[in-house]
Amino acid sequence: MSKPFVIGLIGFGNIGSGLVRTLAERGELLAARLPRPIVLKTIADQDTTTPRQAPYRPEQLVGDVAAVIDDPEIEAVIELVGGLEPARTFVERALKAGKHVVTANKALLAVHGPELMALAAQNNVGLLFEAAVGGGIPIIRILEQGLAANELTSVQGILNGTCNYILTRMTQSALPFDQALGEAKAKGYAEPDPTYDIEGYDTAHKTAILASLAFGMDIRFKDVYVEGITQIQPVDIQYAKELGYAIKLLGLAKREAGGAPVEVRVHPTLIPIDSPLGQVNNVFNGILIDGRPIGPTMYYGRGAGADATSSAVISDLMALAADEGGYNRWRDSRLAIAAGHKRLKPMDELETHYYIRFTMDDRPGAMATIGRALADQGVSIESMIQHRRGEATEQPATISIVTHKAAEAKVQAALALIEKHAMSAARAFILRVEE
Amino acid sequence: MSKPFVIGLIGFGNIGSGLVRTLAERGELLAARLPRPIVLKTIADQDTTTPRQAPYRPEQLVGDVAAVIDDPEIEAVIELVGGLEPARTFVERALKAGKHVVTANKALLAVHGPELMALAAQNNVGLLFEAAVGGGIPIIRILEQGLAANELTSVQGILNGTCNYILTRMTQSALPFDQALGEAKAKGYAEPDPTYDIEGYDTAHKTAILASLAFGMDIRFKDVYVEGITQIQPVDIQYAKELGYAIKLLGLAKREAGGAPVEVRVHPTLIPIDSPLGQVNNVFNGILIDGRPIGPTMYYGRGAGADATSSAVISDLMALAADEGGYNRWRDSRLAIAAGHKRLKPMDELETHYYIRFTMDDRPGAMATIGRALADQGVSIESMIQHRRGEATEQPATISIVTHKAAEAKVQAALALIEKHAMSAARAFILRVEE
Repeated sequence: MSKPFVIGLIGFGNIGSGLVRTLAERGELLAARLPRPIVLKTIADQDTTTPRQAPYRPEQLVGDVAAVIDDPEIEAVIELVGGLEPARTFVERALKAGKHVVTANKALLAVHGPELMALAAQNNVGLLFEAAVGGGIPIIRILEQGLAANELTSVQGILNGTCNYILTRMTQSALPFDQALGEAKAKGYAEPDPTYDIEGYDTAHKTAILASLAFGMDIRFKDVYVEGITQIQPVDIQYAKELGYAIKLLGLAKREAGGAPVEVRVHPTLIPIDSPLGQVNNVFNGILIDGRPIGPTMYYGRGAGADATSSAVISDLMALAADEGGYNRWRDSRLAIAAGHKRLKPMDELETHYYIRFTMDDRPGAMATIGRALADQGVSIESMIQHRRGEATEQPATISIVTHKAAEAKVQAALALIEKHAMSAARAFILRVEE
Repeated sequence: MSKPFVIGLIGFGNIGSGLVRTLAERGELLAARLPRPIVLKTIADQDTTTPRQAPYRPEQLVGDVAAVIDDPEIEAVIELVGGLEPARTFVERALKAGKHVVTANKALLAVHGPELMALAAQNNVGLLFEAAVGGGIPIIRILEQGLAANELTSVQGILNGTCNYILTRMTQSALPFDQALGEAKAKGYAEPDPTYDIEGYDTAHKTAILASLAFGMDIRFKDVYVEGITQIQPVDIQYAKELGYAIKLLGLAKREAGGAPVEVRVHPTLIPIDSPLGQVNNVFNGILIDGRPIGPTMYYGRGAGADATSSAVISDLMALAADEGGYNRWRDSRLAIAAGHKRLKPMDELETHYYIRFTMDDRPGAMATIGRALADQGVSIESMIQHRRGEATEQPATISIVTHKAAEAKVQAALALIEKHAMSAARAFILRVEE
């Protein structure tokens, strides 16, 4: 019998319970695939009294994380606490104590990832985080290992199941946002306070991590331009559909060539409805990666939940248990990220097609004002529709346009002019288009 | 400067040239990601005279493979010869000489894989084959590492770009098979002799490899039930479309639970047109994997060509260069495959829905014969259509049906009866349906 791979867990909520359950249920399968059995010794959580749906002995569960971090027998610590503090302190202490860390904490990695990667390398231990992005889709391995031979040019992801469920429901049943959000809450797909998801922060955390790995740069949450999905109306989705687009909350990271600056942005986006990502619906995640020489390649699966997270966390544990030096495999790439290099493209310099919805009092001249302001900035219109109003004639008029390719700065300048113009009293809402 | 990772290449055709080109073009990127630079020392090929579109010095290219296999400086051998012999001999010699082997040879792995895995383990070297299945999609890593924590229940793949292109063209433009094949040849997507692709052998090789890894069993090409796509007619595709299905050549490997026997089969299949695989068109590959706890997850990309193959081969080289012991990571799983265990479900015991097209002289009683034969075997009909004939009334009548779920043995028994029956003179063509 070979020496077991002894692990400790910090954080015993829903995800932690699912992990403990899966470790037990798949124990035989894991043992057959590994040279060393994985043994969970200790679980630390503030709450030591609420019973969990998982097989554990009462004496395994402790209130003090030191029982995990300072136990010399424990080789790897799983951090499922989430958030920045105290998770950061726990992870740093574990790395400094010479323990591998496996974490699902995307916020921590998006804010402090490069320092933690460097700290892991200094202490000659692994920091693995397959569960932080894409749930069960092994996208971290795919980026760091499977596609490592490529110069990547873009990563586009539907990375948040809550938003994708809401947008899917708004599309399939023409629901307003609030009603779709209500459904998501009722089904347990949205938190009671859904801000973190619907404002795009979760997607931005994940996008920062993917961008760092794809381009080998120190790209963080604060570098990501973020818009959420709360302002989208059924009329936007309907018109997009007529033009052959679906609206998805995308995390985008793009770079034209090796030396060029990187775009990193999160916003609701019109994408062709019959494209691979356009078909990713409900709570599923999808990540489309393009690069040279590989060309486009796409990855799809459940992005969240205890099952998907367990699959990812255990794959990291297996890597550590099976191959003691393996965590060092991509050390050079990780250290390049930690070196702090970054080159970002300002949002103003973005060039793409824009969808713009104007809501305005139906005064004569409004259309003329809009047309003139866009024309003055050199922004030309590709298609336009005036939406039929409801029965209440006092409702404002709504016009949607799609522009030809234009610079973000020019579009924003035109919109500022239009909104300021007393004649039009128009309010503009913009979405970006990806072909 | 750290010691370079010196490699040799056997096979310098189109794919080999692409690999040498990509190694040169991405040299800087690879160097930044690796602790040791990869250096291609020697290339062996029977043809040492035809100039290649790749940067190499004439003295690098030799006619004798011994210059690669017996060179003590060379640590890894890339085998791009293809086919069973002499590739098998080359790979065995390289492994016995203590060299890692990276190969794209799906036929070799599907026929002799388990022995070669065992031989690699005995000699304490790596046998990596990311390029053998799915082109640039890192599906081998995904199966062996990313999803290693899961008990997989099914792998379904569109694994052959030639067939997928032909079926896509038949679907989009209602082309007959021969014309779509002609187009594929004209575009370089089909070989002058397309038998290996269109008869399903390529897909069967790849399916055997995926099934071995997914279920940890010794599953080989000869264990795979194989049907190709040559008998499909536009009328089949048209009727499938009306019912909401696309016809795709699928490689399928399924197992209900841990102990259950495994189905391994390759045949044209009706799948829902709006399913993830139903949307994989043209020369792209797609692989849908399901298991516990992860649920469905899908992988998509270019399945063939020098670029996709280079990406996969170089990812294997990088793994070897970055981490000397890493190839041993999944040794236990590989040795389980090599142990020879297998448990296969006979094709007769398959239970699914069937699409059946009957072509028959329009004699009275034909329908009655068909209906009675099916009913006698307990096979019930879910939907049926009699196709309108062309202008030539001497054309035989064509009827398509889809059955409710039925056992393969019962369906085949009914068809044998129908074909034998003098009254109907019907010829049956069957396709299987996956929901």
